[in-house]
Amino acid sequence: MHVLAIDTSNQPLTVAVLDDERVLATTTMTTHRKHAEYLMPIVEKLVKYAKLTPQDLDRVVISNGPGSYTGIRIATTVGKVLADTLNIDLVGISSLMALALNVQKEHQLVVPLFDGRNDNLFTGLYRTSQSGPEVVIEDQHINFDKWLQKLDEFNEPIIFVGSDVDHFVDRLKSHFGTNFKSLTGIDNLPQAAKIGVYGEKQDPVSNINNFNPNYLRLTKAQADWQKLNPGRENESYVEKN
Amino acid sequence: MHVLAIDTSNQPLTVAVLDDERVLATTTMTTHRKHAEYLMPIVEKLVKYAKLTPQDLDRVVISNGPGSYTGIRIATTVGKVLADTLNIDLVGISSLMALALNVQKEHQLVVPLFDGRNDNLFTGLYRTSQSGPEVVIEDQHINFDKWLQKLDEFNEPIIFVGSDVDHFVDRLKSHFGTNFKSLTGIDNLPQAAKIGVYGEKQDPVSNINNFNPNYLRLTKAQADWQKLNPGRENESYVEKN
Repeated sequence: MHVLAIDTSNQPLTVAVLDDERVLATTTMTTHRKHAEYLMPIVEKLVKYAKLTPQDLDRVVISNGPGSYTGIRIATTVGKVLADTLNIDLVGISSLMALALNVQKEHQLVVPLFDGRNDNLFTGLYRTSQSGPEVVIEDQHINFDKWLQKLDEFNEPIIFVGSDVDHFVDRLKSHFGTNFKSLTGIDNLPQAAKIGVYGEKQDPVSNINNFNPNYLRLTKAQADWQKLNPGRENESYVEKN
Repeated sequence: MHVLAIDTSNQPLTVAVLDDERVLATTTMTTHRKHAEYLMPIVEKLVKYAKLTPQDLDRVVISNGPGSYTGIRIATTVGKVLADTLNIDLVGISSLMALALNVQKEHQLVVPLFDGRNDNLFTGLYRTSQSGPEVVIEDQHINFDKWLQKLDEFNEPIIFVGSDVDHFVDRLKSHFGTNFKSLTGIDNLPQAAKIGVYGEKQDPVSNINNFNPNYLRLTKAQADWQKLNPGRENESYVEKN
């Protein structure tokens, strides 16, 4: 199966082309936030390096959130357009799960995290297994201290993954002591090569048109609109024609 | 420290640009053996993605063997030329050590290997530590069964790394049983992002002109020449003017 995998959930941009579990070509960069500008030329280049054409692709796997609103919209949009145009499968996976894929050890508790500002996190709790990370606590947007309380139930080593772990490392170390573990270097970045392998085994989305980013938090515009329109939480602030 | 890392020891080509431990941009591909054609354009692209110019680089780190003769000559030559032209440090690391860097677990025995044909291996034994893999048995070109005998001294789990592990997996599993461990996907490929981080902490070569690939085996031409010229093992088959 020829797979194109993409993650632009945060500042890193990572793209890979795989043939089953074999990585054909992959690029990861962390220096630009101009994902809309860089993504498609990199996809094009990597498909070429892989000696394929877009028509050879069987599946697109993307991380659809949580993360930067713009970032996850770009990956979701590109994924939908490619899947629709090429008439191939689309798989969306959690951007946090994507980071958890970087942990090699099995049966290991893993907390991937992104800084959610104002002492909040986008995070979840996973346990690695041979078939990939399994959800222990669902992805959520949560206050840092509340999250620590939830993790306190688990009295065993936890590997924290993500480049934002740095922002919290002192508090995590002092809270968890020797149960705090972390990774280094590229293992803290999403890696499309791993996202693609995992995504090959997942069920594709059944209706591409209904596939959306998973923000895990209201946009500011939506929150403002809801304040002005109490009782209409299920409606969108976007005006319908 | 801005580092450019390169490994073209075998079919995979991997290049990374780093700023200390931070990966700025990296590409890995496995589909071409035309390293001479692809390497420099990829270097150029990644330096650009990293928002740097070649003059911003402080160090080049390359894997200088063992591996394919042509592959390690290309990395060595490009490394020497760049270090000399830009007047920056050059670091060479073992291509086998480069694979051992992919293992996350510490205090772990690791056997990186390349298929050396005719039931031979290029291999070595390493033990991971916080500061990187440490050599337990030096890199060598050795018959598969003889290598197993050497490893039998160590009655503990060993992680075998490299895409060529596949060629030997049945025999390794039947020999080592549950002590046989392995990695999957991109963790079996050299990753310049990890090579660069490791190479930042190593001493640079003192004389770039004397830096050479580490073949670990005579070239066929040299072996043939030595047969015809007994007692002249230290001379090269290459005619001097």
